[in-house]
Amino acid sequence: MQSFADLLADAVRQNGPLCVGIDPRWESLPISFQQKFAHAPAEAFTHFGRKVLELCAPNSGIVKFQAAFFELFGPAGMQSMQTLIQDARERGYFVILDAKRGDIASTATAYAQAAFGSTWNADALTVNPYLGADAIEPFIQEARKAEPQRGLFVLVRTSNPGGGLFQNLKNETGPLYRHVADAVASWNEGAIGECGYGDVGAVVGATNPHELRELREAMPRVWFLVPGYGAQGGTAEDARAAMRPDGLGAIVNSSRGMTFPFQPEDAQWEARIQHAAQKAQAELRGE
Amino acid sequence: MQSFADLLADAVRQNGPLCVGIDPRWESLPISFQQKFAHAPAEAFTHFGRKVLELCAPNSGIVKFQAAFFELFGPAGMQSMQTLIQDARERGYFVILDAKRGDIASTATAYAQAAFGSTWNADALTVNPYLGADAIEPFIQEARKAEPQRGLFVLVRTSNPGGGLFQNLKNETGPLYRHVADAVASWNEGAIGECGYGDVGAVVGATNPHELRELREAMPRVWFLVPGYGAQGGTAEDARAAMRPDGLGAIVNSSRGMTFPFQPEDAQWEARIQHAAQKAQAELRGE
Repeated sequence: MQSFADLLADAVRQNGPLCVGIDPRWESLPISFQQKFAHAPAEAFTHFGRKVLELCAPNSGIVKFQAAFFELFGPAGMQSMQTLIQDARERGYFVILDAKRGDIASTATAYAQAAFGSTWNADALTVNPYLGADAIEPFIQEARKAEPQRGLFVLVRTSNPGGGLFQNLKNETGPLYRHVADAVASWNEGAIGECGYGDVGAVVGATNPHELRELREAMPRVWFLVPGYGAQGGTAEDARAAMRPDGLGAIVNSSRGMTFPFQPEDAQWEARIQHAAQKAQAELRGE
Repeated sequence: MQSFADLLADAVRQNGPLCVGIDPRWESLPISFQQKFAHAPAEAFTHFGRKVLELCAPNSGIVKFQAAFFELFGPAGMQSMQTLIQDARERGYFVILDAKRGDIASTATAYAQAAFGSTWNADALTVNPYLGADAIEPFIQEARKAEPQRGLFVLVRTSNPGGGLFQNLKNETGPLYRHVADAVASWNEGAIGECGYGDVGAVVGATNPHELRELREAMPRVWFLVPGYGAQGGTAEDARAAMRPDGLGAIVNSSRGMTFPFQPEDAQWEARIQHAAQKAQAELRGE
């Protein structure tokens, strides 16, 4: 059985480190979708999301779904997310469910089973470390039990301007985010693949390249999921600081930049999505 | 318009501080439900949850739904949670959605709109503070915009054995959980009700009474949601350390103890739930 890390390495080797973020927002959809699906907004998400998957496929093999925007439309929204994840898998995408889950004991197990079992069937889930190691363990266990194996991306240093309020709190050995990074590095050792990386990744924002380099050194065998590139202000060069010389080690997410590089009235929206994915992938590869 | 804090105070004055936690687990349901709904497990949750709401109503006015267990059953599970929240509201329950959400900017807004808008229509949502103040702000804004007003319970000190791994990390002025507590106390000042409490509550486990007392002093006007009573080992006396002399200030959750005080084969399960709620409420009131 191929390891989680090797599956992700294959996706990056084949198509590059770009992760297409699908964060559907009703008011940003092409006007034709808003008109056609005015009475079934979740269906608009499904049809639009499919189009994005199709348009980005030549330039990216990794997709991240933002659960919040689907949850906003209730059961129908969740149905849309389920359909899109299945569609993405059929197209060969590596699928990340960005739900930032975190809870204890059997509740954490339930979230993990939802993420990795037949409910969502994602390759990876983002999780929040605030509740400590025994709240992360159930996610790791479920990820390693699944076939094929799944993985996690633990929030270490987030890309929002105020992310440091607690993450930067320093004790004598370093800030909180470094403690979380050390824990991630240690959890990650439990399932190292042939590519040299493991199955407990880290979310590290692209908006502070200095921290990105520091954390790259602190977690040499950890896959990074780097948000903040594009709309949030991080440049491709900033994000590349997360990659190792082998070209692996980091995937870089762009959501609004990939999904909505157009105004709702723009008839050329398909071409703009295609072009945005092509441009982002080239930039991230340093071409 | 009645404030969030006063609405909660009314519920506690009327029925006491017990919060009934609905965490449905398929394998724990009465055997008759497992048989009848073998092909539609989410419907079993709806019917069983309704029964729990009905049985506990004489002894509690507050209910907490654990989103993970509903999410595990996908769109049908979410439909069940939606139905049960509506049912709980119609019965006059104060409804907490325990989803421990946390994300940045417009994503946080989407989660908050889902929680407080027509999707879930909960009175309160549990949220995770790891991402900092600008990630909590959108939740506060949406809560205060809603009619009636809604509120939050921010994770401060969780009840799991390993909760201290990061929460206890100390800088020169105190551990992380105290920094989070100070932030909660300050956010909470934005909407103090006539009862003297506000709308940004704190989740503080009952499993460490010393910390519970410390945090009670640090956040005198903050509503506490206290998990860990019952199945997790906290006693009623431990939990009462979270209450202020006015009898307000804390609600105490019991999930497994309320929802599953029986074996699946036990034909007397309804009486056992009724009795468990009665006993817990009396204990928590110090009767």
